Amino acid sequence: MAAGNLLYAQSGGVTAVINATASAVIEAARARGTRIGKVYAARDGILGALREELIDTGVEPAAAIRALAHTPGGAFGSCRFKLKDIAGDRASYERLIAVFRAHDIRWFLYNGGNDSADTALKLSSIGAALGYPIACIGIPKTVDNDLAETDSSPGFGSVAKYTAISTMEAGFDVRAMASTSTRVFVLETMGRHAGWIAASAGLAARTRDDPPHLILLPEVPFDEARFLAAVDACVKRVGYCVIVVSEGVRDATGRFLAEAGGVDAFGHRQLGGVGPLIADLVGAKLGYKHHAAVSDYLQRSARHIASKTDLAHARAVGKAAVAYALAGMNAVMPAIRRTSQRPYRWTIEPAPLDRVANREKQLPRQFIRADGFGITAAARRYLAPLIEGEAHPPYRADGLPDYVVLKNRPVRKKLPQFRIPGH
Amino acid sequence: MAAGNLLYAQSGGVTAVINATASAVIEAARARGTRIGKVYAARDGILGALREELIDTGVEPAAAIRALAHTPGGAFGSCRFKLKDIAGDRASYERLIAVFRAHDIRWFLYNGGNDSADTALKLSSIGAALGYPIACIGIPKTVDNDLAETDSSPGFGSVAKYTAISTMEAGFDVRAMASTSTRVFVLETMGRHAGWIAASAGLAARTRDDPPHLILLPEVPFDEARFLAAVDACVKRVGYCVIVVSEGVRDATGRFLAEAGGVDAFGHRQLGGVGPLIADLVGAKLGYKHHAAVSDYLQRSARHIASKTDLAHARAVGKAAVAYALAGMNAVMPAIRRTSQRPYRWTIEPAPLDRVANREKQLPRQFIRADGFGITAAARRYLAPLIEGEAHPPYRADGLPDYVVLKNRPVRKKLPQFRIPGH
Repeated sequence: MAAGNLLYAQSGGVTAVINATASAVIEAARARGTRIGKVYAARDGILGALREELIDTGVEPAAAIRALAHTPGGAFGSCRFKLKDIAGDRASYERLIAVFRAHDIRWFLYNGGNDSADTALKLSSIGAALGYPIACIGIPKTVDNDLAETDSSPGFGSVAKYTAISTMEAGFDVRAMASTSTRVFVLETMGRHAGWIAASAGLAARTRDDPPHLILLPEVPFDEARFLAAVDACVKRVGYCVIVVSEGVRDATGRFLAEAGGVDAFGHRQLGGVGPLIADLVGAKLGYKHHAAVSDYLQRSARHIASKTDLAHARAVGKAAVAYALAGMNAVMPAIRRTSQRPYRWTIEPAPLDRVANREKQLPRQFIRADGFGITAAARRYLAPLIEGEAHPPYRADGLPDYVVLKNRPVRKKLPQFRIPGH
Repeated sequence: MAAGNLLYAQSGGVTAVINATASAVIEAARARGTRIGKVYAARDGILGALREELIDTGVEPAAAIRALAHTPGGAFGSCRFKLKDIAGDRASYERLIAVFRAHDIRWFLYNGGNDSADTALKLSSIGAALGYPIACIGIPKTVDNDLAETDSSPGFGSVAKYTAISTMEAGFDVRAMASTSTRVFVLETMGRHAGWIAASAGLAARTRDDPPHLILLPEVPFDEARFLAAVDACVKRVGYCVIVVSEGVRDATGRFLAEAGGVDAFGHRQLGGVGPLIADLVGAKLGYKHHAAVSDYLQRSARHIASKTDLAHARAVGKAAVAYALAGMNAVMPAIRRTSQRPYRWTIEPAPLDRVANREKQLPRQFIRADGFGITAAARRYLAPLIEGEAHPPYRADGLPDYVVLKNRPVRKKLPQFRIPGH
């Protein structure tokens, strides 16, 4: 098989559209005919590559690969696992090269966030050093939208759409009930280090009095007195108050609010749950009836309400990654570049992985309203196109989406077992 | 205006489709031409009737009423307010009749659950006693699906669809991550007294190893040891475990688990949050990484993923209520009757309100799997048709659903103010 094989792997938290990227990678590779031999996927991300647990995507029919584009989760398994530096764990890097060599893998496409970009970058350098040149392409993916070099991250637009719509819908509910029931509703979103997801809820509001009335961002230290005053003023003015809070909100000392205290029924510290915490605070200090929702994994797996724009991004970066690989590029990532704001237009361009690895893009100050509790017009301009368009999955007769589960047939191992350090 | 006017009001927790019922009522009344004078709505349910806060729906264009059918929340406001017995609060009943008389209201359509059926029933009797015959029609609505006399309750099918799809999607996510991240995921649903909503998650599973692996129902007393053993067995067998828990789960003494203990960061008792509680229990006792989602109001306002069957029910009961009113019926509720299981067929028939008021339909024993942690084939047969079909709302160019907000123009008051007892 002179052509050489391609290995694709998924890394980090999965999204509503990471499988759409996978589907685009496989379809693009198949379209190249004999230019690419086998298209393998690693089971559970880089762990599968280390363990030589490869999956042969060639046995999947075209219809299954097409269906991947509307299926949430990570079809081949993902992992939260960061390789150490080459100096600290040379054995793992050498193992990866040995696996690539044993299976004639010439191209490695790693679909993940900034940690994965780091892994792909290191792999590309050690491959060359060991005399096995491997083309390593990073493919962007993260609901957190914190990747450098790309205008937005595939996965984010869909969670943003989910969050804006959920906020809008719950707002309709609370408004109807506020006279005798819940006055204050809190929705907790993901976003440990950056407030992009919570900020996207702001797209639901067209006027100042529309939900969400307050957004609590990790970028703005939580000030209890100011917050409570804002909630109270909102209830008095509008009749109710919808609050969206990022899980990453911190107090003035930089400590996560969610870790600031609280002991649960079993006597151990309460983890997570900043949404209920904020709702309880409002109840205790202002006396308003309150409710809290924690969307957790629902938000990032909600393929049923994915953004069409996000889906197009996810597909485009997958397709570009294959093109870059075949063009002989290395240590790059297809990045989204916004070429026009209105109408929204974008292209895909290669970005060097060393400018992506281990960086984090926070919500810029000019996207945060002066009072710290909302987003600016500039933020709306940036966010708005990312949730545009619907991409309803097909539904089965039973009323459930027609999501696909692949066969995931393993490739026969050729190497001795490898013990992953510290695992 | 010899025809007399019709008053419609919304009561209790709103649903994704209660406005669809409102839209059907208004459209059916308009279609009757001069048979019905004005169609009024009460602001915030029965409270608006007591306060003489009426809304003239006649100023709303046909397109706005049509758009109501795809708008969540309660367009005229709802309330959680139960009138006392006539003996205990005769003044309120007399006030209602006075308001009806002042505004020539001949038909009162009350859209709610079993408390609202009780109110409508009592009103119909006192009207006759006071020489002002008013036709009172109850219209079923509740996400809890616990109404007697009707095969299902409008509002339930949509929350069931939301819950089944969310469970399925989160299941895809957790499965992909389980090797290095979350092993146990918990979704908390509504259902304080009956497990219908949690049970509906079971529709997501096609095999025993599909999520949800365990469902915790209010009908089955929580047994910690049995539960933990089941979770552990599931993780060992399948690799991960998805649990759906109803907020109404109780311990063997009948106490809500969510109220069983727990003090939050502010030193007061933790309310709600049985989902996080169960997840923490699994973490503490089994050591698995865990996550919890609390869908709260998102589930009952998620019009974007409403069931087409549920929507048809909601529209049909609204239309039938108007027909019953004009046919001179009184103290009845249009109920859904299932006439065929496969294909699913149904009709609307009148049920007497005295058989609906203050009753609660629990999940029958034969719907609960022998081990108490799931649903039976009989439950699936009952539930399956209720989530069939999609009813996507129209979307605006900005990627958000095109939900309508009505003008809600008030009708000029004619009576002195009334002080609602205890309010």
